[in-house]
Order: sequence, then C-alpha cells, then structure tokens
Amino acid sequence: MASTDRPVIALGPDANDPIEESVRRAGADVVLTHDGTVPENARGLVWLGGADDFPTSLPDGLEWVQLPSAGVESWFTSGVITPGTRLTWTSAAGAYSDTVAEHALMLLLAGVRGLPAYLARTSWDDDAKSGTTDSGETTRTLHGATVGIVGAGGIGRTVIRMLAPLGAHTIAVNRSGREVEGAGRTIPTSEIDSLWDDVDHIVVAAPATDRTRHIVGAAELARLRPHSWVVNIARGSLVDTDALVEALRAETIGGAALDVTDPEPLPDGHPLWTLPNAIVTPHVANPWPVQEAALARHVEANVARFVAGEPLHAQIDPAAGY
Amino acid sequence: MASTDRPVIALGPDANDPIEESVRRAGADVVLTHDGTVPENARGLVWLGGADDFPTSLPDGLEWVQLPSAGVESWFTSGVITPGTRLTWTSAAGAYSDTVAEHALMLLLAGVRGLPAYLARTSWDDDAKSGTTDSGETTRTLHGATVGIVGAGGIGRTVIRMLAPLGAHTIAVNRSGREVEGAGRTIPTSEIDSLWDDVDHIVVAAPATDRTRHIVGAAELARLRPHSWVVNIARGSLVDTDALVEALRAETIGGAALDVTDPEPLPDGHPLWTLPNAIVTPHVANPWPVQEAALARHVEANVARFVAGEPLHAQIDPAAGY
Repeated sequence: MASTDRPVIALGPDANDPIEESVRRAGADVVLTHDGTVPENARGLVWLGGADDFPTSLPDGLEWVQLPSAGVESWFTSGVITPGTRLTWTSAAGAYSDTVAEHALMLLLAGVRGLPAYLARTSWDDDAKSGTTDSGETTRTLHGATVGIVGAGGIGRTVIRMLAPLGAHTIAVNRSGREVEGAGRTIPTSEIDSLWDDVDHIVVAAPATDRTRHIVGAAELARLRPHSWVVNIARGSLVDTDALVEALRAETIGGAALDVTDPEPLPDGHPLWTLPNAIVTPHVANPWPVQEAALARHVEANVARFVAGEPLHAQIDPAAGY
Repeated sequence: MASTDRPVIALGPDANDPIEESVRRAGADVVLTHDGTVPENARGLVWLGGADDFPTSLPDGLEWVQLPSAGVESWFTSGVITPGTRLTWTSAAGAYSDTVAEHALMLLLAGVRGLPAYLARTSWDDDAKSGTTDSGETTRTLHGATVGIVGAGGIGRTVIRMLAPLGAHTIAVNRSGREVEGAGRTIPTSEIDSLWDDVDHIVVAAPATDRTRHIVGAAELARLRPHSWVVNIARGSLVDTDALVEALRAETIGGAALDVTDPEPLPDGHPLWTLPNAIVTPHVANPWPVQEAALARHVEANVARFVAGEPLHAQIDPAAGY
C-alpha cells in the first residue's frame, strides 16, 4: 500500500514508541504534535496527556480523538469535550479492566490470607499453622466465601471471572440488575440493601457518581462480619473513610485494602497508614508500564477500525457526558 | 436405617465436631479412641494426630485408616505403615490442593504487584503510578507473563487453573511430561533445563524427594530475569536457600515468596526475614481451620464410599511407600 493511502494520526503531547508502533501496525502513519499544535494533515489524534494541556485548536480535517483514560469526567468539566462537538471521541474504557481486577484480587487475597501481619514478622511461629497466632494473625480462604462485587462493569466482571477458580461465590451489583455472567446472583443497585448480610467480603468497583458516594458507609460496614475485608479499587469517595477507620479500629470487620482513598493523596499521619488491618497501595492498580501496553493494544484496535471505516471502540457520548 | 446397620468409625486422638458430623452424615457411627485405644467394634479409624502418637495396637476387625495429611513420608519412616499391612490406608492427598494453590497465587500476586514495599509506606507517592517509585517499588502484572509450575500435581494444576483468567501463560513440569490440562506447554522433569530461560516467574509445587532437592539452585536462579519471582509452597528443600539469598541480595531476581523454608522453622536473624524482596509466611498455606473443613469434606466422601463398599479416595500404596 502506498504511504498516501494510509491516514495520518497525530500523537501528542510527546512521542511514545509503543503507541507509534501500534498506530503504524494498524495501517496509519504517525505525526507528532509540536508545541501543542496538531499537524493539518491529521485525521485522527491519539492524546496521551491530560485535559489541561489539550490543544486549544484542532485542524478542520480532524475526525477522531482517542483519549488515554477510562474515566472521562475531567474532559467534560474542563470543556475539552462539548455536547455539540463534530468529532468522534473515544476513551480507554475497558482497556484497563484486567490490570485493575488483578490488583483487586491481590488486595483481597493478601487481606483474607493475613499477609500484612506475616510481613511484619521477623520470627517463626509454629502456632501460625493453627490459623491464628498469639499476635493475632489469621489465615482464611476465599474457597467457599461469598464476595459482593459492587459495580459489575468491566473490572467487576473480570474480578468475578478471576474468583471462580478459587471456589468463591459472587454476588454482583449493577444498575440494571441484569444477570452478570459468572456471578452466583445479580442484584440491582436499588436493592443493594439486601447485599450486606449475605457477603463475607466486598470489592468496590463502581464508577464515582453522586449516587455511589459513600455507598459503603457506617450502616453498611456494621452489617459486615468480623472477618470481612473491604477492597476498593474504584474511587475513594465510594467508601466513607471516617466510618471505615472506626470499623477498623473497633475490629468489627476483618480489614480494608484500598488502592484509592478519600482524600487522595492520603495525608501523612492518616490512621489508614498505620492500622494493622488496613492495606493501602497508592493508586497503582494500573501503573504506567502496564497501562501503556494496554493502551497500545487499544489504540491499535481502534486505528485498525478507523482505517477500515468501522465503528470505534469505547465511543464517548458527548451529549450524555460519559 | 437401624443404627446396627451403620458401620462404626473410630476417631482420635481427640473429639472433633466437624469430622464427627461428616462421619455421621456419610452413614456411619462414631466412637472415640480412649487413652490411645481404638474400640473393638470399629471397622474404620479416622486419625487426626501424628505418627508418633498413633495407637500401638489395632482391633482385629479394623479394615481402614484415614490419615489427616496429604504427604505420608513420616507414616512410613516411623513404621506405622508397613509394606505387609492388611489394612487399607488413605491419606488426605488432594484435599488441600485448593487452599495451598490459593496461597501460592496470593504470594505470587503480592510479589509481582510489589505489595511488601507499599505496606512499609506511611506516605503517599504520586510517582508510584509510574510503576516504579524513587524508593524502588515496582508494580507489574501477571497478564501476559509466563509462569513455570514446577510440579503439576493437584496443587500445581489448581494454580494453573487460577492463573488462566489473569491472562498469564503457564508451563507445567511433571515427571511424565504428559500434557497438563490448561498449561500452555508441559515438559518432563528430565527436560526442566529448558524451563528457566522461558519463564517470568516460578511456582514450586513438587513433592520433596532426593531428585527434587535444590531443583531451584544457583544455576537455575541465574537464568531467571531481574523481575522474576520465585514462589515456594511445597517444601523448603526444593530451593537452595543460600543461593536464593545471594540472588535476592544481588537483585538478580525480582523476589521470593516462601511459605516453606530450609531450614524450617526459619531461625531468628535469618536474612530472609529482612530482605525487602523476600516474603515469608510461616507454613500457613493450609491453616488448621481451613484444613479441618477440607478434611471433613474428604472424610465424608471416603466414609460414604466405605459404607457403600466402593473404592476409597487417596489410597496409599504400602509397598511403594507413598
């Protein structure tokens, strides 16, 4: 194919080898943005930056913009995407489900298996085999346990698939209540009140909205069990931090494992840093090297669709705002 | 059914509610051993103790002994099981595969995702999202990684099933080289030398024998990668501890996560306690509460088979010694 047959896709704000290779492999040519300007011949733009440094003007021939994030709130609040845009905008929704779900599984397993206390040890304890040591370590299993998946989008559904071979039962919560594949049971968000008494553990994987704010609060935590772990890999605001700290201090739940916090960053000196039944990872479920590889796959698939004139993955609805 | 139709199964050395319930549910009556003596009317014996306190004489009518452990070396070395025994002996082989495999998955994920360093933090770090922080934390993924499963018995096969939905590739190693379900590739132990260059991580799950001692030694560790994690949930002797400590100190591998050590217990002051790229859990992959539940299920299945006159699960071969 002659080079002139290949559409030109702009990439910015900086060069990126894996993404450039993806674009070329998918059948397009790459040009770089320069000083925030998108070259005139570009028909598509793959933007790896944020909303704040997005180009202020775009060439008339531009048809499509690929954004690097799965959530797109900031692109609307900043005014980059407007309801009347003539462009097709795509996000990275779905591209990072696997890596975030894997982190959720890691956090849940580390909590349930009692890893933090073991890591703090510098001495063997033959009593540990009994399952609970003098120093309070407890090793439990997910086999036969019931895990509530609060938010069964791409990440939640992947967690459900990952839990299946561990012999865990799952209850999915989603907006529609439409049955989620692999879940033992699915309940609509409107009936989430029936969830808390029936689960051993909770994985929070719902989007942050006004309706999901503090979806795990004092009342919900009070209905969990003394061995229950709460995992949050979604957004900090979904869990009431103060109520959580209180439950952890009173040991009314087993523990909490959080990749996201409210506030975030978690301030120095916050009790979550030092409570023995809390695990905090600093928003690393989707670290850049992993994200970059996943985004490169996503970009390759979308450029291939663009070249072929097929509908793009993860299209944003500018009128709806998501 | 009249009680006299139900065979009598002895239980010792101590009473145990879940096991007693299992025996009754399976259609037998329970008697307890007393001062190490098995009642004369017992046709079966479920023994929850060790080889050292096993009854020195058994009633003539006894047909079957169920042991509580998966490995049975000590029952032969102690002379409890002799090649010429007239009894049927069964172990708990297979009963604990799920819980040990789950622990292996937890250790591998915690290592690859860099959990130990995050747990040591008391301060956020926005750089963490880049995948590697100033303080050296690294978050990686098992998605697309290749994991070598050294020993594809019940535990290894379960680990392979658990890794599948994470998008990890697996290479199984077993004695026969006969294809292991779900593994991308299976190689016989005799060709294990071809394994080390092809894997990102290793899970050691082989039985301890003269042939598997130090199956992971200095030469093998040297062929792994700077990001490779070595997980051992089998027996400490399968890994050369001194060579491992050297590799961890030199950071020629990513880390080691061990539920079993050599020596065991791991002595106070041993470098594995404090090396930042080592995770040690004190032989808790199969803690008693979990083990008890799994053993109760195993006993129930075997008593039901005994009542029905069917072949028992996990029969030991007294002549072969395993």
